[in-house]
Order: sequence, then C-alpha cells, then structure tokens
Amino acid sequence: MKRYTIGLDFGTETARAVLVDVENGEIAATSVFPYPDGVIDEKLAGDTVPLPPNYALQNPADWLSTMESAIKQVMQQSGAKGSQVAGIGIDFTSCTVLPTLADGTPLCFVPDLKMQPHAWAKLWKHHGAQEQADRITRLAEQRGEAWLSRYGGKISSEWLFSKAFEILEDAPQIYTRMQCIVEGADWIAWQLTGRLTRNTCCAGYKGTWHKQDGFPNQAFLQALHPDLVDLFSVKVSGPILAPGQKVGGLSVEWARRLGLQPGCAVSASMIDAHAATIGGGVSEAGTMFLTMGTSTCHMLMSEKEVLVPGISGVVEDGIVPGLFGYEAGQASVGDIFGWFVETGVPVEYVEQAKTKNISVHRLLSQKAIGLKPGQTGLLALDWWNGCRTPLVDADLTGMIMGFNLLTRPEEIYRALIEGTAFGTRLIIDLFHQGGVAVDRLRAGGGLTQNNLVLQVYADVMGLPIEIASSQQASALGAAVLGAVAGQVYPDIHSAVNKMVSPPARLVLPDEANHLIYNEIFQEYKKLVDLFGRQPASSMKKLLEIRNRARLDVAKS
Amino acid sequence: MKRYTIGLDFGTETARAVLVDVENGEIAATSVFPYPDGVIDEKLAGDTVPLPPNYALQNPADWLSTMESAIKQVMQQSGAKGSQVAGIGIDFTSCTVLPTLADGTPLCFVPDLKMQPHAWAKLWKHHGAQEQADRITRLAEQRGEAWLSRYGGKISSEWLFSKAFEILEDAPQIYTRMQCIVEGADWIAWQLTGRLTRNTCCAGYKGTWHKQDGFPNQAFLQALHPDLVDLFSVKVSGPILAPGQKVGGLSVEWARRLGLQPGCAVSASMIDAHAATIGGGVSEAGTMFLTMGTSTCHMLMSEKEVLVPGISGVVEDGIVPGLFGYEAGQASVGDIFGWFVETGVPVEYVEQAKTKNISVHRLLSQKAIGLKPGQTGLLALDWWNGCRTPLVDADLTGMIMGFNLLTRPEEIYRALIEGTAFGTRLIIDLFHQGGVAVDRLRAGGGLTQNNLVLQVYADVMGLPIEIASSQQASALGAAVLGAVAGQVYPDIHSAVNKMVSPPARLVLPDEANHLIYNEIFQEYKKLVDLFGRQPASSMKKLLEIRNRARLDVAKS
Repeated sequence: MKRYTIGLDFGTETARAVLVDVENGEIAATSVFPYPDGVIDEKLAGDTVPLPPNYALQNPADWLSTMESAIKQVMQQSGAKGSQVAGIGIDFTSCTVLPTLADGTPLCFVPDLKMQPHAWAKLWKHHGAQEQADRITRLAEQRGEAWLSRYGGKISSEWLFSKAFEILEDAPQIYTRMQCIVEGADWIAWQLTGRLTRNTCCAGYKGTWHKQDGFPNQAFLQALHPDLVDLFSVKVSGPILAPGQKVGGLSVEWARRLGLQPGCAVSASMIDAHAATIGGGVSEAGTMFLTMGTSTCHMLMSEKEVLVPGISGVVEDGIVPGLFGYEAGQASVGDIFGWFVETGVPVEYVEQAKTKNISVHRLLSQKAIGLKPGQTGLLALDWWNGCRTPLVDADLTGMIMGFNLLTRPEEIYRALIEGTAFGTRLIIDLFHQGGVAVDRLRAGGGLTQNNLVLQVYADVMGLPIEIASSQQASALGAAVLGAVAGQVYPDIHSAVNKMVSPPARLVLPDEANHLIYNEIFQEYKKLVDLFGRQPASSMKKLLEIRNRARLDVAKS
Repeated sequence: MKRYTIGLDFGTETARAVLVDVENGEIAATSVFPYPDGVIDEKLAGDTVPLPPNYALQNPADWLSTMESAIKQVMQQSGAKGSQVAGIGIDFTSCTVLPTLADGTPLCFVPDLKMQPHAWAKLWKHHGAQEQADRITRLAEQRGEAWLSRYGGKISSEWLFSKAFEILEDAPQIYTRMQCIVEGADWIAWQLTGRLTRNTCCAGYKGTWHKQDGFPNQAFLQALHPDLVDLFSVKVSGPILAPGQKVGGLSVEWARRLGLQPGCAVSASMIDAHAATIGGGVSEAGTMFLTMGTSTCHMLMSEKEVLVPGISGVVEDGIVPGLFGYEAGQASVGDIFGWFVETGVPVEYVEQAKTKNISVHRLLSQKAIGLKPGQTGLLALDWWNGCRTPLVDADLTGMIMGFNLLTRPEEIYRALIEGTAFGTRLIIDLFHQGGVAVDRLRAGGGLTQNNLVLQVYADVMGLPIEIASSQQASALGAAVLGAVAGQVYPDIHSAVNKMVSPPARLVLPDEANHLIYNEIFQEYKKLVDLFGRQPASSMKKLLEIRNRARLDVAKS
C-alpha cells in the first residue's frame, strides 16, 4: 500500500496541491485552483472607493476554498485513500499577513470590519508601508540595533513589522481589534490543526526574528511608537517551529471536509521560494539554489552564521533545521528579458518567430547562442528594478554600454542575460568573501527552460549548473515537509534523498568562455563601483533630476 | 532678361544641377541623375575578383555623363538660353580623388590599367588606407609636425595623403603611372576649362595644405617613404584657388556639349558640406552652421586662426576667402535614430504609425515631444560610430543609462536625440574655450524636418536655432560661387545676401528646459571624461575584448 504526503503551495494567484509518493517522490496527482478574488488591488467587493495604488490584498476565504478543492481533486484523481496520507506540508508567499481575532478569525470576516482595507490579508507585494519601513530602518540605524545587519541594513516595506506598523498608523482602530497578526503560511496550519504556531522561515526572513535574540525588543518598539510595545509579545505570539516540525494533527472537522484522517500530521510551513530549495533537492550546506524567474532568489546554507553585507537575510533553521539559511536576490532578471521582448524587438523578428512557430524569446536565444563571449562588445548593468544584493538599493537603473550602428537585437538580449549572470556572480563572490562557501550551483524556475541563459550562467560562473528535476519544486518541498512531520523520514535531508530526483541535467561551463567572462566581469565590477556605490554618481544624479521632473509633471 | 548661374552638386550616388536666378536666388530648375555605376564596392565591371571589403570606388565617366544630362535638363526645363548663364560653381564629396595622366585622363580610362582597382577614383568613404594614415600620424607625432595639430592630431584614412600613399604601397606601378592625383571637385573644373587648379577647401580640409605653410615638406615625405618625395611638388601641383575665384572659361567643346557659351566662368570648387554653409546663408564669422543628417557637420568662421583641439580642421579661405573656416563633426546622429527605428521599435508602434499613415520617426517624435527634460531618467553617450569632435576616436561606443522596467521606446528615442544634442554642445563649448565665438546657430539637412530634434537642440544649447531656407543648400552654395566667379557679385558675402533667403523659421529655446538640460549636461560631461578620455576605461577594455573575440571567430 503506497503512502503519500500532500504538498500545498499557496502562490500569488493560485493554490496548488500535489499528492506525492513518499517512497520515490513521484507526483501522483496535481491540482491548481485560482483564488476567486485574485489579487485585490482595485477595490473591496461591494465598495466603490478605489484602493490606494500601492495596495495588494487577498481574501483568506479564497485560500481555504481553493485548498479544499485542490486536495479533494488530487485525492479523487489518484484514487488514494485518506489513510494513505502520512502528512501535509505548506508553503506560501511571504510576507503575506493577516490580522485576526484571538481564535484566528480574520478581521475581514467580522461584519463591521469587512469594508476596512486594513482588515484584509496584505499580500507580499502590498507596498503601503514604505514610510513605516523607512522609519524602522532609520531608528534601528540610530540605535545601532544588531538585527538590522542581518537584513542587509534595510527593513523592507513588505515585511510583517512594517505592515503591522502601517495598520497601527493608518487604521488604529483595526490595530486595536487585531489580537493577532499572522503569516498566511501559519494561518493555514492553524486552521487545519487548531494550533497557532509560527515558522522559523517566515519569522526569520520576514518577521525580524532571530533564534538566539528573538524579536526587536520593547525598548525599540517603545521608541518607534508607544502603541507598538506589545506587537511581538502579544500579537505575534506563539511557539516558533522549524520546517518539518509537526504543528499538530488535522482537526476532525477539516479531516471530514478534506476526506483525510483526523490527526494527520501537519508540518510547520515555509516561504514558497525557500520550499523550492528543498523541492529542488538542496538540503545541505554549500550548494546554492537559484530560483530563476522574473527575479532571482539565491538560497544557500552553511554551518555558521556570518553577517554578509547586502544579503536579504540569514536565519538559523530558516530552511533546514541545524543550518543557517542565507537568502540573497536580484530584483529583476526574467523581467528584464521580458521588458526587452515587449519593448525593443523589431517587427522582422516577431514575424520570424511567428513563421518558425516559436516564441520571440526562443528566436533571440537561437540567434544569440552562437555568439562568443565578448563578441557583442556590449555590457549591461542589470538594475532595471534596482539592485537587491549586494547594494540593497532600489534607486539604481539599468545601463547598456557598447552600442554601434551594427548592434543587433539578439546581441542586446545576450548582453542583458550576461548582465544578470554577472549580478549572480557578484553575489557568489560576496558569499565567498564573507567566508560562506558556494561549492555547487543548482537552478530551478522558469528561466531554466532557456538554454542560452543556462549556458551563459555556467560560463560566467565557471561552474556546472545542475538543473532541478521538478517543475513544481515549491509544492514538492512542501510535501517533503509533510513526510518529515508525519515521521516517514527522521529529517529533511533523508526525505530529500528519497523524494527528490537527482538533477535533470547538468550544464557544463566552457573554460575558454569562462576566461573571457572573467575579464568582462572585472569591467562589470568597475561599473558597479562607479555607479552603484558612489552617492554622487551620474546614475544617482539622473534619478534625482528625474524625480524632480516627475513631480513637476504631476503638479502641472 | 534674367541671369542665372548653375550649381553642380556631386554627391555619393547622384549628380545634381540647379539653375539659379542671380537676382533673388530662386531655383528655376533642378535635375538629378544617378551615377550609372554608383558606388563600386563589389567588383570592377568585367572582373570576377571581388574588391576588398573596405573599398569604395567611382567611375569618373559617370560624373561627366550625369553632369551633361543634368545641365541639359535644367536648361531645357527653364527655357533659359546659354547666354543667360553667368557662371558655373561646383561642389563635390571629398576627399574623392582620382589618379590621372598629366593631361587629366583618368588612369582607369587607359586600356591596360582599367582592371586595376587603384586606377579608379577612390570615393571619400574608401577605407583602404587606414594603415597608411596611422603611419602618417605616428611619424608626424614623432617629428612634432605643426600641421598635425590643425587636424585634431589625427590624419584620416579618407584623405588624399593617405590614399596616395595607399596607391604607392599597394600598387607601385600605378603610382608610377599616376602623373597627377586630383580631387573630383577639381577634376570637373579641369575638364570644363582645360586648366588644372586645386581649391583651398579640399586642399585645406582633406589635403594637408596650409595657406602659409603649404604641404608637408619633402623631409617628412622622405622619412615616410622615399618614393613619396615628389607627391606634393609634382603629383599634387597646380595653383590653389579659393571658392569663388575663377578657374577659367568654359571650353569650346564643353560649351557645345552643354549648350552654354564658351568662356562662361567656372569657379574654383568646394566640398559639398562646406558649400551647404554658403547655401544655408552663412558667410560671416560667429554663426555656426550645422548640417544635420546621418552625421552632423559643424562649420564656423572666424577672423583668427586658433588651434582648437579635436576639430576636423581649420583652413584659411577654406569656406569664404578672408576668414578661417573651422570644421567639426559628430560621426553619427541621424544614423543613431535610424538604427533605433530599424532595430529597437516594437510591432505595436509600427502598426500605430501605419494606422496614422506617418513614419515611425514621426510617431516616436509625437510621443516624446510632451516629455519634460529629465523625465525619462535616461542619458545616452552618442558614440554609436565613435566620437569625431572633440575626442577624434573611432574606438568608442554608444551607451544608455537609466533604464527601468517601465522605460518606453519613445523615451529611448528622446534620450538618443538628447545625447547627440549634448554632443553638439560639447563642440560649441570647445570652440568657446578655444576663443572662437559661437554667437548664432543655423541648421540645415534632413533632420531639420524633425521638430522634436530642433526643440531639444534649442533647449540643450539655450540658443535659438535658425532653420536654413533651402533644401538644396549645397547646390545653391555652388551656384553662389558661380555668381562670384562670373563677376555678378564682388564676393561671396554680397552674393549670399542676394541669393540666399533668410532662415525659413526660428526655433526658440525654453529657458526652464535649458536649466534642466544644464544639469544633465554636467553628467554627460562626466561620462565623456570617464569613458572617452581614459585609455583604460571599461569602454576601451570592452572594445579590446570584442576585437579579440571577433578575431577568434574569424579564425574559426
């Protein structure tokens, strides 16, 4: 009799369930349902007042209904029985947070609050808390708070601390009614088991929590805003569990609704990008996992904690218990290539792609793959959306150098890919300089479909790139957590060894190309220094002039 | 009875004749004929051997046949009689040179030489003499030759000296047979009158001649190559006349062929871009004339000779006798905009232009004209074809900084225009710093059709831009020379006052925009210094890597 676990993957637009064979990681069934309300960024249902432009909310009822449908569907498709399911794991976008009552009822379910935007779940990309984030960062700098340096010196507007502070300032009455603020990831586990816990991954990377030091202390909260004093001690309370630890057993009510067995183990949750690391087969120190999509996330584990300047976070037990999980990132990668294909490719190419019945991306890749490193003469700084690691600076812009009258679109496309590869190499160098080893590279995400991207990355890094076998790495990672919580395996590492297939393939670097890229990378680094690290650089000055011009235009 | 002069304009692809009323400059008739053999850059007629890729030759028989057809046609169209034509003026591409026998017979007309590429006319853009040009420059540097500094420190491969040296080294037997080497401009006047002269414009700007110092001396020639010793004294001999001076009267034979009167005055010739200055109505010191097309030529006159570093040349009597004519230039301007429209504009825009029945250039201009200076956040270095003035460096490349994921094609288009405007401002500043006044700006050429270009230029310069009235400024300038040689007017200045209409219109700068552009121009200058003036800049290094990569590709 086969045994399974369920991986639940809550994305920005959809919830997904996978039913996974614990013996070999085979996915017996997959089901995806879109959230009925999607991303709520125009107005609340039944309201006529538009939301501010930087708002992005969600309806927690959608999470439950899509989860229920997806689980039922995978059980039905596979023909598996509830008794065959050994555990449930959850991954979720983060930081997606929800204000609730003490019993977990979302404030937006409370009749007199449902027309209040701040009573709803704030999606990760809700950007209403920039002012609060800046104030947290500034005060932490002034007070020399040690925790600030674990986050590259900057607290993001996307994080729980900023979003809670935003509720306090923009809707104090909601803040008062809010007895708890909780990540969607933890709220789902709470719903399923009746037990409120937090997970080390969300708490560490997005909740300013540290295993030894805890949350920012009350003196800091008092200095920031007196009404925030009890934020962490009361509204963010609850035990903090590492991924794979058991939150509890499935409640009788949910077991009935889902057709599973009461008491079925539910694991502590994880952030989706971090779960992808596990689902990508990385559970040990020294292998960097790149999730390459519109942006790129770089995950790395190590036995030691080092403060690497400019990374997004380092969290003990953040990915795999017993290791320090490091996260770094590039703010735009596939987004840049997408921008170029939308904005900068001539008719002739679009027609060629149509004739060949391939995408423009593929056409450009085919044209560019035969070029030698350096042959285009182009070099790009990949800051179309600012620079996350290592500069932690959104106020930077993209640059391309080396144009001549014969420069072709595929050359620009290749240069953009190379620019992002240099950006990744800068991050790897940063870890090396910080004393954190990067011995191997593994990649997942949509961009691993593009051979040009992979070859350029391998050649720039001078390292083989292992391509993760699963196309559903986050959900598979969640299923791995379910298997650990359900005691099928004693730990994540053993579970990964059984449940995640070896890399689908290996992209090997070309040594001659690598040597040329070494030279070009020196120039990339010079440009990073010139434009990224000097406060009075032309790039900074242009942005300042641009911002003034935009203000003028807005006024007139 | 009306009186006329004929302006002959020999371009790269066509010869044009205009018949101009000397009283008011009205163009009574225009005629254009393409050269039957065009630009000979693949192989010689009747030959199977391809020419080297950097060759560009012409057939002088084409010049004569098209001239004859064009003159006959304007006479016929206008109904004017030969007796009404008071003079003929000529402008020509330069440096386009022709090896001949002592009587002016082109070597390519000599039966046993007609299969020899070096016996043909070398068009201005023939680039076979780069090695010779570099050696002339190096030796002149070593010997501290004063004339080198009049040409921005660099002798071009396009010039007579380099092209003659190329013939000597690549085809010594042709060099021996060549009794004379002459500009097409002067060869036409020689054909029409039977008298060999040179003109100060071609000789000064493209022939390393100086009114006081003459040509490079024999010691220099001896050091360069012993067989060159008699180059200037024998093969480039003949009196040197300023534009408007009379070469002689039309020969009986040519008068018969053209239907004109024998003895009709033929003026000393000019380079086409320089003739456009006169045809654009500029014959006095202090007004810079910009011929804005694929590239831009900047002409300026002054009472004094100053060595302005980086300009293309300064020549006494080079444009108007009695004044020093300065020439500067930007190697690519309209070419950059054309490159962008060909290479970087998406389908959607091409379709919009089609729907509106306008060009893509116009569509982009319409979309971009409402943007405020600085609003795009973009800044471009306009070096798609290197930088002529002031850096005199072909080994530079274009750059754009300031991209983000919302950057639109019209913003890039505007930034490219702004980049070229900053390039012109750099040239104006250079003249000011050198002590040569630039009081007014007048512009001609195809780009004056584009209002966005004109407004950006006016705003960047902070000066009104006068738009030349004639669309055929070179040919009109040549007709002015005919009127001076034919003694209708005593000098070019008086002739211009009568024969060239005042500017068609004036584009005024916006003061607020100018102040913003002043700030952005500071950043442009910083980038010029960073990338253009440092031998070890990243831009230089990238080109070095590119050249190696291209060599590798060529080898494999």
